[in-house]
Amino acid sequence: MPATPYLRVDPVRLRQNLRRAAEWAGANGVALRPHGKTHKSPEIAMMQLDLGAVGITVASVGEAETFAEHGITDLFVAYPLHLDEQKTARLRALAGRSRIAIGVDSVEGATRAGQLLGRHGVEVLVEVDSGQHRTGCPPAEAGAVAAAAALAGGEVRGVFTFPGHSYAPDAMASAAGDEARALAAARTAVEAEGLEVPVVSGGSTPSFAHTDADVLTEARPGVYVFGDAQQWELGSMPPESIALTCRATVVSHAGGRAVLDSGGKALAADRGAYNTGAGRLLDHPDARVVLLSEHHAVVDLAGAPLPRVGDEVDVVPNHCCAAVNLADELWVGDDGGLRPWPVAARGRNS
Amino acid sequence: MPATPYLRVDPVRLRQNLRRAAEWAGANGVALRPHGKTHKSPEIAMMQLDLGAVGITVASVGEAETFAEHGITDLFVAYPLHLDEQKTARLRALAGRSRIAIGVDSVEGATRAGQLLGRHGVEVLVEVDSGQHRTGCPPAEAGAVAAAAALAGGEVRGVFTFPGHSYAPDAMASAAGDEARALAAARTAVEAEGLEVPVVSGGSTPSFAHTDADVLTEARPGVYVFGDAQQWELGSMPPESIALTCRATVVSHAGGRAVLDSGGKALAADRGAYNTGAGRLLDHPDARVVLLSEHHAVVDLAGAPLPRVGDEVDVVPNHCCAAVNLADELWVGDDGGLRPWPVAARGRNS
Repeated sequence: MPATPYLRVDPVRLRQNLRRAAEWAGANGVALRPHGKTHKSPEIAMMQLDLGAVGITVASVGEAETFAEHGITDLFVAYPLHLDEQKTARLRALAGRSRIAIGVDSVEGATRAGQLLGRHGVEVLVEVDSGQHRTGCPPAEAGAVAAAAALAGGEVRGVFTFPGHSYAPDAMASAAGDEARALAAARTAVEAEGLEVPVVSGGSTPSFAHTDADVLTEARPGVYVFGDAQQWELGSMPPESIALTCRATVVSHAGGRAVLDSGGKALAADRGAYNTGAGRLLDHPDARVVLLSEHHAVVDLAGAPLPRVGDEVDVVPNHCCAAVNLADELWVGDDGGLRPWPVAARGRNS
Repeated sequence: MPATPYLRVDPVRLRQNLRRAAEWAGANGVALRPHGKTHKSPEIAMMQLDLGAVGITVASVGEAETFAEHGITDLFVAYPLHLDEQKTARLRALAGRSRIAIGVDSVEGATRAGQLLGRHGVEVLVEVDSGQHRTGCPPAEAGAVAAAAALAGGEVRGVFTFPGHSYAPDAMASAAGDEARALAAARTAVEAEGLEVPVVSGGSTPSFAHTDADVLTEARPGVYVFGDAQQWELGSMPPESIALTCRATVVSHAGGRAVLDSGGKALAADRGAYNTGAGRLLDHPDARVVLLSEHHAVVDLAGAPLPRVGDEVDVVPNHCCAAVNLADELWVGDDGGLRPWPVAARGRNS
């Protein structure tokens, strides 16, 4: 067994999560293009494709390169990349071995993408803001952005958004509604420019079950493969579905609490305003990580007996994507045997 | 130049920070044993030793192994390790090539350490809680813990604490006072057992300038090498001393704000209750990272003109230790030339 703290994946739960999403997508006529930033793992991407996913979404050119090196041939960089000389050359090279598209969210960015990448087979999707207020143009401006890309020689595949404001209590359904309205408006705006919109893409794990299949042609959830304490606390995934935990050792009973060796360098320090702590214990629903530092997680067990010093427990990170990006491998299996899957795209932020 | 986002180190500021701490320690008769978890870099550890540090502190056996492989011969694992079979064997192997000590914070842990490691040359220091309430026994119990180690065959080097409650506004001096009182009481308790206490060790970057040199023989600050937005906002290091930044590219002006490619996977999501945002811009003191997701940092520039899309800016992470642990290398130098220093102990949490 690896030394704690290490990330474990329950392969049965992983497969159930993958299958459930694939079945929902199939039943509703929505293509699935899962976000690979969550797992950064070619093994899991291949499982997703085997279950019918049309391709993989990524957040960076480096992630796209990693997945392409592992044989994945349809990649969407859902990000408004700034196309400097290096990025342009890397995307042209990628287009030689993979179907590839990138995001644009401004007339200037779309013009640049069309000019630099249009003849090289890299398509664009126009990102619109559906309420998270991060990137993306207003839906009504999607037509102008798409037209700029086309005018500069680019191929426009469609429109996309990330309804990240679904990460709030009771916002899952309303964010999905915002997503559908923004994407429908964006589609209308692009079509008004005389352009076709083959792909209308959205999706986040909290909003996924509420996806409006009359509007979206494609969904890009990421976290659904593993789940985490954020999904548990939002109510979008029950603890029984959580497929990724950090195995940790109790190292101290200082102050009458259990102190674990799974600190922020193993769990990540991500914490939404709605989170009730810095992580959960899978087998102790009332327990909370009440203090997280780099190498310590102090757990309040809510009156339950303390596990012994030396015992191992399974901690559910708040945000699985951030925890996975700290690890060089995922350990897949159960106590009968674990095998490592490399986190091949770890740290590939560029 | 590497592609953004990447971590840059200003070597002039780094050396100034190292020298300033070394001079303070020398002038006050306190040995410096800097914490290597901040930089995880053999190059910087060697600079610290060249400037008079007596050894390097680490948080895990893996960090100790990494530094030992790079020729560092005096290491203290300031952590109450649980000594399973693997850890015990690894520590015995380390003791063959490096002077090494570990932390203990209970009678049981001290007994185990004495039994398993005492004959193998691994010393122990007793950790006491000086107010952070994380690990460490109460100071009055340090005598019993030390006596247990000695009875089991262990060599007791002394006592230590981490005054982590110094990470709060206006708590720097008071936490240093708590540290000195706790360590003085612990020393008395250990001496009452008839044991010598050659080392009385404390230190955090915020409390460092307030160290009670009459009590402490050794200090273990970590962050002081780089500084970060936490130190800036606590007032313990001015922005002019910050030696580590994340170089980021402006990728979007969505919503009239600058969106950078330095997300939480580059900056880390650490955020103290006193932090005013998720990061700062080195050259725009009024700006704040107001929204951080995995690959996006949305910046409010407080009315200053937006940098252009494609421009690069220097972001100060909230917590440099966490940001460094996300990167495979630090890029050291200036725009005239950067050279990579490996983050050799990245991810070595076990």
